[in-house]
Amino acid sequence: MSEKAPSVVAFGETMIRFSTKNFERIEQAKELAIGIGGTESNFAIAFARLGGRAAWISKLTNNPLGRFVANKIREHGVDVSHVIWTDKYRVGLYFIEFGKKPRPTQVIYDRKNSAIANIDPNEINWNILKKYDAFHTTGITVALSENCKKAVEIGISKAKEFGTKVSFDVNYRSKLWSPEEAFKALDPILKNVDILLVTKDDARNVLKVSGSYEDMIFTLWERYNPEVVILTLGSEGAMALKDGKIYRAEPYELEVVDRIGAGDAFDAGFVYEYLRTGDVEKALNLGVAMAAYAHTIPGDVMFMTREEIETIMRQRHHDVVR
Amino acid sequence: MSEKAPSVVAFGETMIRFSTKNFERIEQAKELAIGIGGTESNFAIAFARLGGRAAWISKLTNNPLGRFVANKIREHGVDVSHVIWTDKYRVGLYFIEFGKKPRPTQVIYDRKNSAIANIDPNEINWNILKKYDAFHTTGITVALSENCKKAVEIGISKAKEFGTKVSFDVNYRSKLWSPEEAFKALDPILKNVDILLVTKDDARNVLKVSGSYEDMIFTLWERYNPEVVILTLGSEGAMALKDGKIYRAEPYELEVVDRIGAGDAFDAGFVYEYLRTGDVEKALNLGVAMAAYAHTIPGDVMFMTREEIETIMRQRHHDVVR
Amino acid sequence: MSEKAPSVVAFGETMIRFSTKNFERIEQAKELAIGIGGTESNFAIAFARLGGRAAWISKLTNNPLGRFVANKIREHGVDVSHVIWTDKYRVGLYFIEFGKKPRPTQVIYDRKNSAIANIDPNEINWNILKKYDAFHTTGITVALSENCKKAVEIGISKAKEFGTKVSFDVNYRSKLWSPEEAFKALDPILKNVDILLVTKDDARNVLKVSGSYEDMIFTLWERYNPEVVILTLGSEGAMALKDGKIYRAEPYELEVVDRIGAGDAFDAGFVYEYLRTGDVEKALNLGVAMAAYAHTIPGDVMFMTREEIETIMRQRHHDVVR
Amino acid sequence: MSEKAPSVVAFGETMIRFSTKNFERIEQAKELAIGIGGTESNFAIAFARLGGRAAWISKLTNNPLGRFVANKIREHGVDVSHVIWTDKYRVGLYFIEFGKKPRPTQVIYDRKNSAIANIDPNEINWNILKKYDAFHTTGITVALSENCKKAVEIGISKAKEFGTKVSFDVNYRSKLWSPEEAFKALDPILKNVDILLVTKDDARNVLKVSGSYEDMIFTLWERYNPEVVILTLGSEGAMALKDGKIYRAEPYELEVVDRIGAGDAFDAGFVYEYLRTGDVEKALNLGVAMAAYAHTIPGDVMFMTREEIETIMRQRHHDVVR
Amino acid sequence: MSEKAPSVVAFGETMIRFSTKNFERIEQAKELAIGIGGTESNFAIAFARLGGRAAWISKLTNNPLGRFVANKIREHGVDVSHVIWTDKYRVGLYFIEFGKKPRPTQVIYDRKNSAIANIDPNEINWNILKKYDAFHTTGITVALSENCKKAVEIGISKAKEFGTKVSFDVNYRSKLWSPEEAFKALDPILKNVDILLVTKDDARNVLKVSGSYEDMIFTLWERYNPEVVILTLGSEGAMALKDGKIYRAEPYELEVVDRIGAGDAFDAGFVYEYLRTGDVEKALNLGVAMAAYAHTIPGDVMFMTREEIETIMRQRHHDVVR
Amino acid sequence: MSEKAPSVVAFGETMIRFSTKNFERIEQAKELAIGIGGTESNFAIAFARLGGRAAWISKLTNNPLGRFVANKIREHGVDVSHVIWTDKYRVGLYFIEFGKKPRPTQVIYDRKNSAIANIDPNEINWNILKKYDAFHTTGITVALSENCKKAVEIGISKAKEFGTKVSFDVNYRSKLWSPEEAFKALDPILKNVDILLVTKDDARNVLKVSGSYEDMIFTLWERYNPEVVILTLGSEGAMALKDGKIYRAEPYELEVVDRIGAGDAFDAGFVYEYLRTGDVEKALNLGVAMAAYAHTIPGDVMFMTREEIETIMRQRHHDVVR
Repeated sequence: MSEKAPSVVAFGETMIRFSTKNFERIEQAKELAIGIGGTESNFAIAFARLGGRAAWISKLTNNPLGRFVANKIREHGVDVSHVIWTDKYRVGLYFIEFGKKPRPTQVIYDRKNSAIANIDPNEINWNILKKYDAFHTTGITVALSENCKKAVEIGISKAKEFGTKVSFDVNYRSKLWSPEEAFKALDPILKNVDILLVTKDDARNVLKVSGSYEDMIFTLWERYNPEVVILTLGSEGAMALKDGKIYRAEPYELEVVDRIGAGDAFDAGFVYEYLRTGDVEKALNLGVAMAAYAHTIPGDVMFMTREEIETIMRQRHHDVVR
Repeated sequence: MSEKAPSVVAFGETMIRFSTKNFERIEQAKELAIGIGGTESNFAIAFARLGGRAAWISKLTNNPLGRFVANKIREHGVDVSHVIWTDKYRVGLYFIEFGKKPRPTQVIYDRKNSAIANIDPNEINWNILKKYDAFHTTGITVALSENCKKAVEIGISKAKEFGTKVSFDVNYRSKLWSPEEAFKALDPILKNVDILLVTKDDARNVLKVSGSYEDMIFTLWERYNPEVVILTLGSEGAMALKDGKIYRAEPYELEVVDRIGAGDAFDAGFVYEYLRTGDVEKALNLGVAMAAYAHTIPGDVMFMTREEIETIMRQRHHDVVR
Repeated sequence: MSEKAPSVVAFGETMIRFSTKNFERIEQAKELAIGIGGTESNFAIAFARLGGRAAWISKLTNNPLGRFVANKIREHGVDVSHVIWTDKYRVGLYFIEFGKKPRPTQVIYDRKNSAIANIDPNEINWNILKKYDAFHTTGITVALSENCKKAVEIGISKAKEFGTKVSFDVNYRSKLWSPEEAFKALDPILKNVDILLVTKDDARNVLKVSGSYEDMIFTLWERYNPEVVILTLGSEGAMALKDGKIYRAEPYELEVVDRIGAGDAFDAGFVYEYLRTGDVEKALNLGVAMAAYAHTIPGDVMFMTREEIETIMRQRHHDVVR
Repeated sequence: MSEKAPSVVAFGETMIRFSTKNFERIEQAKELAIGIGGTESNFAIAFARLGGRAAWISKLTNNPLGRFVANKIREHGVDVSHVIWTDKYRVGLYFIEFGKKPRPTQVIYDRKNSAIANIDPNEINWNILKKYDAFHTTGITVALSENCKKAVEIGISKAKEFGTKVSFDVNYRSKLWSPEEAFKALDPILKNVDILLVTKDDARNVLKVSGSYEDMIFTLWERYNPEVVILTLGSEGAMALKDGKIYRAEPYELEVVDRIGAGDAFDAGFVYEYLRTGDVEKALNLGVAMAAYAHTIPGDVMFMTREEIETIMRQRHHDVVR
Repeated sequence: MSEKAPSVVAFGETMIRFSTKNFERIEQAKELAIGIGGTESNFAIAFARLGGRAAWISKLTNNPLGRFVANKIREHGVDVSHVIWTDKYRVGLYFIEFGKKPRPTQVIYDRKNSAIANIDPNEINWNILKKYDAFHTTGITVALSENCKKAVEIGISKAKEFGTKVSFDVNYRSKLWSPEEAFKALDPILKNVDILLVTKDDARNVLKVSGSYEDMIFTLWERYNPEVVILTLGSEGAMALKDGKIYRAEPYELEVVDRIGAGDAFDAGFVYEYLRTGDVEKALNLGVAMAAYAHTIPGDVMFMTREEIETIMRQRHHDVVR
Repeated sequence: MSEKAPSVVAFGETMIRFSTKNFERIEQAKELAIGIGGTESNFAIAFARLGGRAAWISKLTNNPLGRFVANKIREHGVDVSHVIWTDKYRVGLYFIEFGKKPRPTQVIYDRKNSAIANIDPNEINWNILKKYDAFHTTGITVALSENCKKAVEIGISKAKEFGTKVSFDVNYRSKLWSPEEAFKALDPILKNVDILLVTKDDARNVLKVSGSYEDMIFTLWERYNPEVVILTLGSEGAMALKDGKIYRAEPYELEVVDRIGAGDAFDAGFVYEYLRTGDVEKALNLGVAMAAYAHTIPGDVMFMTREEIETIMRQRHHDVVR
């Protein structure tokens, strides 16, 4: 990895993920697959696999579940040495049952009273942000607890102080809070964000912007004044706005194996390339390629190589041109 | 469960179900999944999960396989205390290999000489029918043996005596008998049925009705004179006729995980709602929702909650309206 | 089941049990086996499998995990219709890693803030105790929360009022409370117990009795004045005292598959036979046979039949005699 | 394989074998391992793996289960081209639950009305016996049905006619017949046997010989006048008698993985070496080595090579000598 | 099997096949499924399952992996008695990760220095070709090593000498050699082929024929002058040319479970029927049916019966006609 | 981790490990468990888990198997950033079948032509040794290839130059070379070793020392003049010699789950504690505790925490004292 590799610190909760297989319900299961899932660590892992330098900050209970989480993140080369370990609290869990139409995929969270929700914002050595290009977190972390919200705010202010960029995905989760609560908490935070990532649904429902996608993205830009704002459009690709110019990337044709983590893969692709080159178009293209690839990989975690992503990007370009 | 919950006794055979995974052939398998399957117990389980009171009558061999069957039915709250246990005979089995086009899904039965096929109709305490709203059985039970046929006939006459409604699904199985044998045995029985359930294929091939769906359902109504007759139309939904009026329910858009048990889920939905409210339209709607949901659940057994079914019904309604 | 079958109501928490296979550590696992475990439901299941009539009272969260727990108890014929369902709180979990020397088997609890810990003692319809021979609970339930402790106290006083016997196992768990806390809470409760079950270790460390086993059991009898007191001796069998007379049962030779639940199986065997016949010697013998058999069955739950237990009892007797 | 390789035709039933894992009960299982088991095919497979030429005669239903059986025997190079295929009847099954003390390993047979039980003895092309050194079958085949018994008798008389040796293992199974029925059927058959194999328990309980092992083996020899009689002694090894001389082989020290098939492996080892060399001592030694090795292999089928067996024989010899 | 059954000897490498499940990446796996794969043994197995007589020649290392390969081929009745066993070299391996769009299915070969690549062409008893109707091999075998290429050449010349037909599939693999290398090696070989099988892509890229499918097939026929040339067209079916006449078979509608081995199944179907009847149209039809069916079966190996293939052929015919 | 944490660089090959489950043979398997195994990475992982700082140097092929190896080492916090990646060669493999008496556990290596065997000793940045307390490698690495041997020699001389201690385990493997070849290669190397680890069998058979354990260890000390020499004694514990003084540690009572990796765990325990404290007795005690614990953990890799090891050490001490 050259010294030019972009670098990021991600901050948030990672849960143990239990899932059934072959579309079974939990009530039918005799075994559950165990893995990890957490938007910020998903981001950090994908970022590291692209070739970036990534660290993940969190707080974990010192038991086999906590070590499981740290192991599975470190496995990809993400630095977990700044995680705070405790003998108290618990490791959050989530359960997932994959559905087929008309049965929806269902997620059950059991994450209350986790170690990170009880974090003391001052436990974290925020000075490490100095050594990284960006600090990344999401609305989920803000929603976890008042302490987490404070930690996000301190982290952002430290990043500002150190000249580290702030990357933030709104990532609204209805099982954690209402759109109104989310807006109230996030609105002041977003004003300090450099790279603002948001889905069109969250933009409409939480941030209350309306109109065409162009209208929406301009409104966000004007309201929060970030360096760049990215509006992800699901099956319609993604759009970004920087310096008054709109960029757009087309979606890939894809078949879904596991949708979870696709948004995080997008974020990692965008932020990695944006930090590396400053080129919004390239960044958007890497983002949508990462998101498409992520749909084909079981689990939250992005098991891929940069070469594989480059291959699908080349092939698409080729297909379109010829 | 309020005292108003509808109640039903189902009578028939439940087999051990062995299945391969991931579209493997049995000849390739090293392990087979073990479960249960039987149209009447599938019905009773789905009925109980909707909130009804359900019992299942059968005869089982007192060995681990027989206990397995009873356990897996009782698990859902179905009363199996009236099952007759014996040290003789055997538990029927079936094997299933799921296919993809052009390879058909294949079922191999190994159910000869099962305990229920050797039932003495007088072993059953038919007086329990008094305490239930309906008695449900199907053409499969009639096909199993002369003894089973007699038991069905006695059960129906007892139900009539007690004012318990008779619900009957034709459920033709070509591996058990010919259409002609089926017709000969079922024709007199159907004259005593209150709720007559039949697929369009069985109506044509076994009951020998023809013409448009409307023609078919009217012919059946005139011939057997049930309180209500239901014609299920596969991917076209379902239709019912009561008091000279035709009702129709549209099918759901669905993706198939496991088709087995979808007809039983329909029956449970229809009969549950019909007994509860007497409303044919509501009953048909619950039936098609149950059938659609059943397609997404691995195995014969309907692992769902009433709330989940109500949610997909609401969502469809909503989608249509908006 | 004849009307003479003994009957019991058990009250307590049942958790989801996650376990690794083949002596793996959780950190190595890709899948965890999912089952249930809870001392009182283990007891109720074993009691029902012996032929008794059993109900289990608890409070469960209405989600797939809560339904999983209820299903797996109901599967054995235990009445779960008195369970209180809620949309709040969570289902307790525990994780188990089996060890081999010198690595100990390790249990990790994640049961805080479970539905039952938040139970309102008055939610329970204690009047159902009228229809049962005994009310069974353990020190674990008392340890869960102040609310649970109150529920136990009310349950016991109701049992007394209805002439229902109180069966109680001290079941000390160091991860829930200290010996001193346990003693303080349990000491007054034990004075109202009819069938007092305790291991020699709990007797020494929690109830602070000392001396020979005979001394210990007499001390307990004098202090708490139960109808019968049972001291289980691990690999040395078990001992009981009633009406001043000491009874003793020899242990079985056994190989361990899964030790968890063996104590509960002992309790079920003893209480079932004691309620049925009043014969302490027979009850002790059934208890030790049940405990031995339980060591050979994976999981908390006692998958066995009365005939199987009678067979091993006959064979031992036979071996000794010949 | 040189032309000197000994050769054998085995005749009998092979069933599908369903087993649970990790000492689970069938009632707990979600999956069962599927394999095959049948004493004569176990013998033929072990014989072929030692380097012999082996054929297996039977009758099988032409469905995936029947093909599964034939495949798994052919896999080892056993000739199954003489198997009679039918579209009728069924493939026999057996279920096995492994136990630990005091819970015994339990086998449940579901083999009634299998294809072979319905065999017409004249369906078999007995002339193939001409091309083999020996014809091997067991008391189990005799017990299956009157037809099977006749087929065994015809096979033996054909073998006599062709100068093919008759190898026979008494193999008493209490779930198939009583000792008295077995004795009545087998007594005349054993008079025509050349290589008579019997366990000490079957010798006592079925063939009603008594006294010391030496007494027993001499009595059998005098009564049935075989070329050689072998008395297997379980954990005490094995003994043989030929031409008035007694031979003895010591057992191996062993740890049990799966006991099923160990007797068949012994038979294959003995008969293979006896046919090859005529040396009773060598044959006994190969037999006990095969039996010991078989205890360590999961399943009925003897997955091993001759080199592996020779290695353990050499090592033991070495250990004893030094 | 009647004496008229067509017969074939196939020559080539069979590897151990490791695959992940449920679209997992190898980096995520905790277990890999183990099977076998090799184009010529796939062919021989499918040929034998259709009712033909098939032998497979190769060289294998005498260890569990080599025996695994031989067992899994012999299981289907293919004669492996001419395989050459060695204690040297290794068994080739390949790893497969199934993908979903846009992630391609990926194969990783680890087959260098396998036993067959080190074969001495004179080790093989080529005289066995006398007793077979055809000798089948492919371009993969030629690519493995210079020794393998020589063995193919000798085999073909021996076949010519014995009047045994030569069947050859170009089977280009880019991981083994370049199109140019392939052309150089195969061009002289193809001049001695009787049944020439090639995909449209290999025809274009390796054999460098161009134009319409008709042009391509005529060019091949003129250039190599085989008895019959078959051009497979993927999702467009297949085409053949014999005696100046073009035949064509339509593809089946199909859903993909595992594409690997479909070409081999086509070849087996075509060659089997062509040898049996000489009817090119029938042969093409059996080929496309086999290929379609093969797409639905997990693994390289064609687990099917002739009856199953005949059923799908009848059903298609039926569907089209009515 | 405090700055006082001892640190080590390990150098060697890590293979993919394929294993069967439940004592199955490979020929029976349908799935193989996939993991990693390599004595030096096992050492580095165990060292890191104790709290040390560890790096692992090797050469890996850049494919999913190579990444799998690196991931599974990095997961435990071992630094793999100095691994050399190549697109050539292959990743070594080994297969393991666990046995029970009298069947031995069997290992099949398929490691020829691996990337590390083709390493250029100068590819490695040996300067990193400066930053570590010790350099650890074993006789296996020396045996892999002439290149590896040279790399070991260079590594050792660099370590000497930097004042980094050299830790070396003889680790003789009969499948790689003969005792004579091993002795010839290792004898000069061992003269430069600071911490010399050897089993009593390797000491006798390879290093050709004889007499009592005391004699043996003194002979080694005199011959190679290391700072400390450790003789591991299997079930008799371990012995060390430093400054003329002999130290001894008693073995633990243990039950075996998986023996592989126990020697590596011993080495890690000894070296960690020796580097940390210089106390030979403490180091030996940690070594035997680690080795005992390793026997209970499936796989090569030491999934444990320092706290767990300290607990079993305390308990033993406690048991002995009381």
